[in-house]
Amino acid sequence: MMAGAGDEPFFEGTEKLLEVWFSSTIGDDSLDLRDIDRGHWETLLRLVKCTIISMSRNESMDAYVLSESSMFVTKDRFILKTCGKTTLLLAIKPLLEIVQKYCGFDDVKDVFYSRKKFMKPDQQDRIHRNFEDEVLHLEEMFETGSAYSLGRINRDCWYLYTLDGEGVTKPDQTIELLMWDLCRKKMEIFTTDVSKDGRDATKKSGICNIIPGVQIDDYLFEPCGYSMNGLLPEGKYITIHITPEPGYSYVSFESNVPQESYNELINRVLDTFRPGKFLLTIFANKASIARESHKGIEDKRTINNYNRQDHQTCVFKEYHLTYSYFTRPVI
Amino acid sequence: MMAGAGDEPFFEGTEKLLEVWFSSTIGDDSLDLRDIDRGHWETLLRLVKCTIISMSRNESMDAYVLSESSMFVTKDRFILKTCGKTTLLLAIKPLLEIVQKYCGFDDVKDVFYSRKKFMKPDQQDRIHRNFEDEVLHLEEMFETGSAYSLGRINRDCWYLYTLDGEGVTKPDQTIELLMWDLCRKKMEIFTTDVSKDGRDATKKSGICNIIPGVQIDDYLFEPCGYSMNGLLPEGKYITIHITPEPGYSYVSFESNVPQESYNELINRVLDTFRPGKFLLTIFANKASIARESHKGIEDKRTINNYNRQDHQTCVFKEYHLTYSYFTRPVI
Repeated sequence: MMAGAGDEPFFEGTEKLLEVWFSSTIGDDSLDLRDIDRGHWETLLRLVKCTIISMSRNESMDAYVLSESSMFVTKDRFILKTCGKTTLLLAIKPLLEIVQKYCGFDDVKDVFYSRKKFMKPDQQDRIHRNFEDEVLHLEEMFETGSAYSLGRINRDCWYLYTLDGEGVTKPDQTIELLMWDLCRKKMEIFTTDVSKDGRDATKKSGICNIIPGVQIDDYLFEPCGYSMNGLLPEGKYITIHITPEPGYSYVSFESNVPQESYNELINRVLDTFRPGKFLLTIFANKASIARESHKGIEDKRTINNYNRQDHQTCVFKEYHLTYSYFTRPVI
Repeated sequence: MMAGAGDEPFFEGTEKLLEVWFSSTIGDDSLDLRDIDRGHWETLLRLVKCTIISMSRNESMDAYVLSESSMFVTKDRFILKTCGKTTLLLAIKPLLEIVQKYCGFDDVKDVFYSRKKFMKPDQQDRIHRNFEDEVLHLEEMFETGSAYSLGRINRDCWYLYTLDGEGVTKPDQTIELLMWDLCRKKMEIFTTDVSKDGRDATKKSGICNIIPGVQIDDYLFEPCGYSMNGLLPEGKYITIHITPEPGYSYVSFESNVPQESYNELINRVLDTFRPGKFLLTIFANKASIARESHKGIEDKRTINNYNRQDHQTCVFKEYHLTYSYFTRPVI
């Protein structure tokens, strides 16, 4: 621990995000990650330093609101997103073991580990303090991983580690909006002073209108902070996490809803939270209807009065990735 | 110096590349970097730990072959490319001073500092060992610089530092092919065993045919190694540097010739040197006829029997940058 760390109130809203796709080398179609007992997930989460607060499910997905962000389990995909000082990387080895032992998948089809640069890296556990060390840790578990940084490495940037294999070939897409320096008025909604519970905050903020028809599991933390998982059919989800405190306000929006263009969705999210800055990433593989969605963003030097500062693309074997960074003009 | 460094024969062919565009805030059109006395350049190069071997010029450009790579001086653009253990970053502050004092330009319009990840970073001078430290050094001199890494930061990658300003608005473009694991037979040409001088190596290798009509200044090092500057009208150039030794063979090709498509040029360069791996970067600003050249590369998963491993693009205020990394299949 650094001298002075923890003296000032601070919470690192910035999440670590892990997505792992499993497969069976003998093509056993009966395997399902949801058959794994909750007790094993709880053991896993103890290593990460977070706990399950709430659970919801539909026919294709189990979704958990955690003390620090969220976990999603579908038949062959595991997603863990954790903020604060959690130690997400410590979950990977036990995850692979639990999945092989209690479910039967014997192969990892793809892995995505990503995060924005932390606001205060020195306050993280040693294994998460810098991306190079995280990559060394990941390389102990996966043989053919590639590590990238997008954006300005001397300012805000976003890191990605992914496998260099054939990857997921069925339609898949993920959009993330990571936002900070948010509108104080909007952020006040996510305090127990203004809202009486998660449901109230979801309604007051307009989160319920971002994607209609979502089965929502929301939670308002005491005295402030908010998390929600929203379920849709066929393994689709949205998840939102909010650190509302001025000085280190942070909101993340993530979804895998397939859309040919995300422009309207992006505008709705921005209107809901009004960040000072945001970072947008869109992953879409070749089979996804979102595979051309980046073309609608490429020439956009402004979105909703925000000015683009950086725009990068990466082409992987199966996926196309877009990274864009926007700031609101200082008036 | 690391223990053991220098025990095995090794030369770091990988260059550091600096390009600086100057301007006059009072719009003085008479200013010209070529008015600076050669003695000042020699002083500058001493700091970098290299010397001038040869000089050539045409109506728009002075070109220097150095003991470690090349230097180009046009009216308002300075390019310094140095390999080995040179300390290029130490030249920047004196460069700005010399230019202001002996030429009169009082503003820096744009800066590009780039390099591939070194083969042996630990053998570099302390200031060049890692890009983060290089960026700290650059940030002492420029206020609004942005640093990027393209490609796999846990394998081969390429670093760039550039200013976050309006940049160069007149037509400008640069293509670089950085190649390694090269064909031994081709590399033998660049030894005094096989070629009698630079001119002979230029002819035997086919370098003279890459871009016809170039005014060539070439040099064959004893016992091996090769450098060439090629001049074209209107400030256009090509420059090639070759470290032919097996084990650490390296060739760089760089040019600012404007072309709508670089595909044919790329093929000619690859045929001339036959690398095992290469990294391609293309910069083109909005006014350049090469501004759409990246579109002819985007969908190319193979070039000349090489397989693309990575493809990234960056959009800056004025420039579009393409980064592609290719390997030859191992037979």
